[in-house]
Amino acid sequence: MTRLLTGAPATDGFRMPAEYEPHAGCWMLWPERADNWREAARPAQLAFARVAAAIAQFEPVTVGVSTAHYSSARALLPGGVRVVEMAHDDAWMRDVGPTCVIDSAGVVRGVDWRFNAWGGLDGGLYFPWDQDDLVASKVLEIERLDRYRAPLVMEGGALHVDGQGTALVTEQCLLNPNRNPHLARADIEDALRVYLGVRTVIWLGLGLYNDETGGHIDDLACFVRPGEVCLTWTTNRRDPQYASSQDAWERLNDARDARGRRLRVARLPSPGPMHLSRREAAGIVPRPGTKARPPGERLAATYVNFYIANGGIVMPLLDPRTDRLAAQRLKLLFPGRRVVGVPGREILLGGGNIHCITQQIPRGLR
Amino acid sequence: MTRLLTGAPATDGFRMPAEYEPHAGCWMLWPERADNWREAARPAQLAFARVAAAIAQFEPVTVGVSTAHYSSARALLPGGVRVVEMAHDDAWMRDVGPTCVIDSAGVVRGVDWRFNAWGGLDGGLYFPWDQDDLVASKVLEIERLDRYRAPLVMEGGALHVDGQGTALVTEQCLLNPNRNPHLARADIEDALRVYLGVRTVIWLGLGLYNDETGGHIDDLACFVRPGEVCLTWTTNRRDPQYASSQDAWERLNDARDARGRRLRVARLPSPGPMHLSRREAAGIVPRPGTKARPPGERLAATYVNFYIANGGIVMPLLDPRTDRLAAQRLKLLFPGRRVVGVPGREILLGGGNIHCITQQIPRGLR
Repeated sequence: MTRLLTGAPATDGFRMPAEYEPHAGCWMLWPERADNWREAARPAQLAFARVAAAIAQFEPVTVGVSTAHYSSARALLPGGVRVVEMAHDDAWMRDVGPTCVIDSAGVVRGVDWRFNAWGGLDGGLYFPWDQDDLVASKVLEIERLDRYRAPLVMEGGALHVDGQGTALVTEQCLLNPNRNPHLARADIEDALRVYLGVRTVIWLGLGLYNDETGGHIDDLACFVRPGEVCLTWTTNRRDPQYASSQDAWERLNDARDARGRRLRVARLPSPGPMHLSRREAAGIVPRPGTKARPPGERLAATYVNFYIANGGIVMPLLDPRTDRLAAQRLKLLFPGRRVVGVPGREILLGGGNIHCITQQIPRGLR
Repeated sequence: MTRLLTGAPATDGFRMPAEYEPHAGCWMLWPERADNWREAARPAQLAFARVAAAIAQFEPVTVGVSTAHYSSARALLPGGVRVVEMAHDDAWMRDVGPTCVIDSAGVVRGVDWRFNAWGGLDGGLYFPWDQDDLVASKVLEIERLDRYRAPLVMEGGALHVDGQGTALVTEQCLLNPNRNPHLARADIEDALRVYLGVRTVIWLGLGLYNDETGGHIDDLACFVRPGEVCLTWTTNRRDPQYASSQDAWERLNDARDARGRRLRVARLPSPGPMHLSRREAAGIVPRPGTKARPPGERLAATYVNFYIANGGIVMPLLDPRTDRLAAQRLKLLFPGRRVVGVPGREILLGGGNIHCITQQIPRGLR
C-alpha cells in the first residue's frame, strides 16, 4: 500500500540517508529519445546496459522502459536486472526519481519533487515533461513506499547529503529563477531542512562548466563520508572550470558541517576537456523545443558523477589519459569498496553521467 | 532477481496451491478495448475498480494499466491499490497472468503458459495477443519471482486445483485442437502433473454454455476445499446448460481425488439466463478480427466465477432474483470468509467475470 502523506519528512522524524549508506537497490530509466541520444539511442542503450550490469554486481537494479522499447531493453539487459514498463520523457532517474528518506525505525519513504525539465519553458531542456513528473510516484508505488509530494521544483542531482544533517548544493541551480522564482534562498534552505531532514546547508557557487542542468552539485562535488567531500578539479588556469572549482574549494574549506566539523576536501582530476564531435552531433535528430547539440560543444565531463553502490563505486571512463588516475583516487577515497569503471562517453553525450542516470533506494527494515 | 528456470515445477518439488490457501496478493489488468467493452470501456473500468476495492479489503491488489490509461486508472482506483504500467491486449489476468507454484520451504515461483487468445487464428477472440503473452513474465519480474516457461498453450481459467494433488479441467477446453493440437489427452495430463505438481486429473466434459473461452472450468465448477467442489447448476431442463451441468455432476460423483476421496458436490444456482441488450451491443465498436457481440447473445453468466481472497469471497452480482440465494450458498460453503458482492454485469459483457479478471500470488516465506 502506498499512501500520499500530508506531513513532511523532518517533522515525521525522517532524514535522507547518504548515498554511502546501505541500499535496497538502484533504479534507472532507459534512454530512448532520438533528439537527445544519437543513432536512435542505441549506443546509449548499450552504455546504460553496462552500467546496469555493473551496479547489479553490488545490489538489485530495476530499469524502467517505455512499452515500445520493453522487449528490446529486456533482451539487452542481463537477466538479473529487473525491467518494468514505465513511461518517461528522458532517462535521468536521479532527477525524476524519488529522493528517499528513512526514520530511526528503518521505515523508508519517498520525496516526490516537482519536476520541470531543468528550467521549464525558461531554459528547460525539452517539453513536455509530464511523464517524467510521474516517475517518482510510480517507482514508490512499485516499491510499496509511502510518498511525500514536495511543493517545490527540485532534482535529485541538485543535492547531496552526508546523512548526518548536512546538505551540499549550488547557488547556480537552486537559486535559478527558472526553478522556484517565488522562493528566496532562506525559503529553499527551509524546504531542504523539512524534506531532507538536514540542519545545515552548504552553498557552493557555480556548478560544472556548461552543465545544462544549470549547475547540479552532482557534477561538481559529493560527500565521500561524513566530514569529507571530493571535488572536480583542474589545474589549468585557462579552463573556464578553474575559477568555479577554486571558489568551491574555498567555500568548502570555510564551511562547517551540521556537527560543527571542518571538511576534508579531496580533489578529483578532470578528463578532457571533451567536446561533441561532428559525427556524434550528426547522429542526433534535432527537434524544435528540445535543446540543440551543436558539434564542437564542450561536454560536462567529470569523474565526480559516479554512483556509490553497496560495496562498490561505479565510475565513468571518459579519457584514457586520466581514467586511471581518477580510479586510483577513488580507490583511496573508498577503501572498502571495489571501483568499477564503465565507458561513460555515450552517457555524457546525452548531458550527464552515471550518477545522473541512477537513484538508490535506501535499505530499510520493512 | 527473476530467473528463467530450465526445469519444471514438479521435478523441482513445487506444486500449485489452491486458491483458498493464503495469498501474498492479487493482480488484475485494466479493461481498455473499445471493441470488447462498451462505451470505450468506461463502465467496465468502474466495475473493475469496484472489484479491486473489494479485494483490497482482504489482500494487496495490483492493477496493470497501459501507459495511455495510467492516469485515469490511477485516479479511479483507491489509493491502497497499487497501479503499475503494463501493456496488454485485454484484461483477463486469470488467463494471461502467471500460475504460481510453491515448495515446502515456501519459495514461490511462476508458470508462464503460452497464450493464444483462447484459440489463436482458429477461433481465438482477437489478434494480435503478443502483449498478453508477456504479462506473466512482467508480473513475475515485478514480484521478483523465478519463472518457468511452459511449452504448451494454457490459461489460468482452464484449471483448478485442490492443493493436495488434484486438478479439475474440462475436455472441451483442454482437448480443443485450437490449443495444443500436437498433444493427446495423456500428454496434457502429463503436462498438468509436471507444471502443477498434481497426481490426479479429473476431467469434466463441456464447460458453461456459450462461454467464449471454449469451456473454461472456472465458469463451471471450482474447489471449495479439499474434497469439495461447487458446480454451476440449473433445474431448467430446456436450458442448454442443463445437460452439461448434469454430466459434470455425474462425473464429479464418480471421481476420486488424488487422496482417494469421493467429492462432495455443492450446487450453485444460475442467474438469468442473461442476454446482451441492443443498447449494450450498440456501445461496442466492432473491429475485424475481434469476436463480434451481436445483440440478444446469451451471456456466460455464473456465480461460480468468484474470487477467493484471504478471509473473503468476492462474487459477482448478476441477477436480483438469484443474487441473494447464491450469496447465502457461498456463505455456507465458506463459513470462515466474508462474502462480498460486486456488480458483475459490465464484466460479464466483456466475456468473463471476477475470477477471470484476477490472479492470486501465493504467500510464500521469502
